[in-house]
Amino acid sequence: MRVSVEELLRAHGRPPREVYFDNENSGYVPREVVEEMIPYFNSIGYGHPSITHKPGWEAYEVLYKTKDLLTKVLNAEGLGEFAFVHSGTEANNLAVLGHALANKGRGGKIVVSAIEHLSVIYPAEEAERLFGFRVVRVPVDSEGFVDPEVLKEFVDGSTSLVSIQMVNHEIGTVQNIFELSKVVKEVNPRAVFHTDAADAFGKIPIDLKKLEHVDMVTLSSHKIHGPRGVGVLFIREGVRVEPVLKGQLSYEKLWPGVENVPLIAGFRKAVELAYRDFDLNVAKMREARDLLVRGILEKVSDVLVNGPSDFSMRSPDNANLSFLYVEGEALTVELSINGVYVSSGSACTSRILEPSHVLLAIGRKHEEAHGSILFKTSRYHTREDIEYTLEVLPKAVDRLRGISTIKK
Amino acid sequence: MRVSVEELLRAHGRPPREVYFDNENSGYVPREVVEEMIPYFNSIGYGHPSITHKPGWEAYEVLYKTKDLLTKVLNAEGLGEFAFVHSGTEANNLAVLGHALANKGRGGKIVVSAIEHLSVIYPAEEAERLFGFRVVRVPVDSEGFVDPEVLKEFVDGSTSLVSIQMVNHEIGTVQNIFELSKVVKEVNPRAVFHTDAADAFGKIPIDLKKLEHVDMVTLSSHKIHGPRGVGVLFIREGVRVEPVLKGQLSYEKLWPGVENVPLIAGFRKAVELAYRDFDLNVAKMREARDLLVRGILEKVSDVLVNGPSDFSMRSPDNANLSFLYVEGEALTVELSINGVYVSSGSACTSRILEPSHVLLAIGRKHEEAHGSILFKTSRYHTREDIEYTLEVLPKAVDRLRGISTIKK
Repeated sequence: MRVSVEELLRAHGRPPREVYFDNENSGYVPREVVEEMIPYFNSIGYGHPSITHKPGWEAYEVLYKTKDLLTKVLNAEGLGEFAFVHSGTEANNLAVLGHALANKGRGGKIVVSAIEHLSVIYPAEEAERLFGFRVVRVPVDSEGFVDPEVLKEFVDGSTSLVSIQMVNHEIGTVQNIFELSKVVKEVNPRAVFHTDAADAFGKIPIDLKKLEHVDMVTLSSHKIHGPRGVGVLFIREGVRVEPVLKGQLSYEKLWPGVENVPLIAGFRKAVELAYRDFDLNVAKMREARDLLVRGILEKVSDVLVNGPSDFSMRSPDNANLSFLYVEGEALTVELSINGVYVSSGSACTSRILEPSHVLLAIGRKHEEAHGSILFKTSRYHTREDIEYTLEVLPKAVDRLRGISTIKK
Repeated sequence: MRVSVEELLRAHGRPPREVYFDNENSGYVPREVVEEMIPYFNSIGYGHPSITHKPGWEAYEVLYKTKDLLTKVLNAEGLGEFAFVHSGTEANNLAVLGHALANKGRGGKIVVSAIEHLSVIYPAEEAERLFGFRVVRVPVDSEGFVDPEVLKEFVDGSTSLVSIQMVNHEIGTVQNIFELSKVVKEVNPRAVFHTDAADAFGKIPIDLKKLEHVDMVTLSSHKIHGPRGVGVLFIREGVRVEPVLKGQLSYEKLWPGVENVPLIAGFRKAVELAYRDFDLNVAKMREARDLLVRGILEKVSDVLVNGPSDFSMRSPDNANLSFLYVEGEALTVELSINGVYVSSGSACTSRILEPSHVLLAIGRKHEEAHGSILFKTSRYHTREDIEYTLEVLPKAVDRLRGISTIKK
């Protein structure tokens, strides 16, 4: 394994351009964000934010200024608190398992959509296994939408928690979270509504005053070009959550250990950059995405678009395409050798080569899911990046189709 | 609160020198380590290590090269695996709660010393509350040592897990982990032995071949001048641990979510720096610590040394002193204004002003614990740093004793 990695890296050589589309799995962190973090490692705020010395107070300032910024951009003044954890995965665990721990005497149903991130689905199953909750999966339509009327049938007086993503991480489906959360509260006002907004943050507007029925919201730094290592859970006042891990608390009362101040400073910068020109940033990722998808559909045959066909109901950065008669994993490697970095299938599950549960839930067949490629565009993609990709990609697909064992 | 932080920072002005001794709570990360991390944010290895493209393979290389280095410096070839988490706290949670989850049908005793880090004690209590284990605390002597003969009395056939720190985080007591783990296995070979070595790593030699009875070992990046955000749990082959959090796994099978590659690259550099001149580094921290303690005992009256009086049985970086008739928290602030950064009481618990459970366990009275100051020296401290501290500290103690309500 190790030798083959080194060989693979040698095989790459130097492509004329590198275009990174795998913003689903790990973000490109721009220079400005990196530069923001550097002093916090040894010059300012490098202390523990709970300790009463200068490097500690400076660290504490980073925490509350970041929370102030989140309060502002999400219109959350006076609504609740933001908890810092180390990833979106940890924030989802805190939401689901933290809810289960705080309500474990009562049991009841945990309702999730069939296309939630695994860091929601697996903790829900753990709450079932350990604490006697019952997990119920709401189906989605062929584009990934949860129908409020369908959701209504799954919610009742015993529903303890409902968790539905604001934007799906693989196919970009933008749910009507206002309507979905309203329906839940109409049936059962005591049910807690969580939304994983990791893929919505910085892509579509989020207003927590308007989303009055939403109790918890997950955010993730690396999805907005911040550093890996910062996740956030918004918790509306009065909603009960218990820490999942135990230990010494600092300012952060729901996750033990010292807050990662340098990374949070980087995250704050990433939020600033995302929101300083929100509409322009979104327009840029949308333009790059549209150019890419249009070009691919023109130049390559036998391509399926996974997720919403109406692109106004789809995250502006998301393109998920199945290239029929091609192994997505093979295409990922072929593109990498040419400097274009994407992911395949369910991005994260690619190592084990199981087809994405999201793609299966919207009705894709195994072979269609296996040929899927996920692109996430960003404000950093240029027209030249997309044009280069449109040169490289059709050739790669052709070559692989030529040698593929999967035939029409 | 927020206004007062800004006022406090303004009150600081510019002291002639800054000396950071709070390496317990948050480490100073040297320039070389920061520079090692920078490219991993956007130039190399910025991908997800499980994805089959160049930035992913480069990321994967960081993981296995770091594990190779740990294997080498800890003499762990063929003994087991290293799991990456986000902090020492998370590694301790994985050890204790992960063990409890893997053995939850069986129950039994979890034996901890009375002076363990709270990220061991609280998860043990959680295992009791959730899974029916029973927590037993082994007392320590007045210098923090666990006597193997005493430990033996607490272990029996029902003992599931024993967790004893290699070096105490507050008072620097170096336990005889070989002897303690041997005693446990003599009584019950099926009992799992965990040691939190966060404060031993880089300070005293650790040889996992020799420590044949030790099953799990916790390490933490920030304690060796690496970045915050990397914890490691070594798990000996055959020892069963279940993930505490749930979600998408990458290479790291015991903690979901993407590995934090830039920080792990920084951690790797920190390990290299700590081990390249291990003896010299230790000699430097010991020399600075000895100079500091000797100077303080000469210049300040009514000072108690907390922890081992035989400094050969104490971590080379650790000095924990109680300044009688002084509030440690007030002294921390007074020193900060003069550019000397320390922590008080139990460092981490200082915000809530409860006396350290470690100091109480070794028999310190509340007022003695409250006047305690923790210094951790490092290879970066110069003679001038210590001399400056020895100028500033006696004056600060005098001033506070002059206005203190705590009288002799």
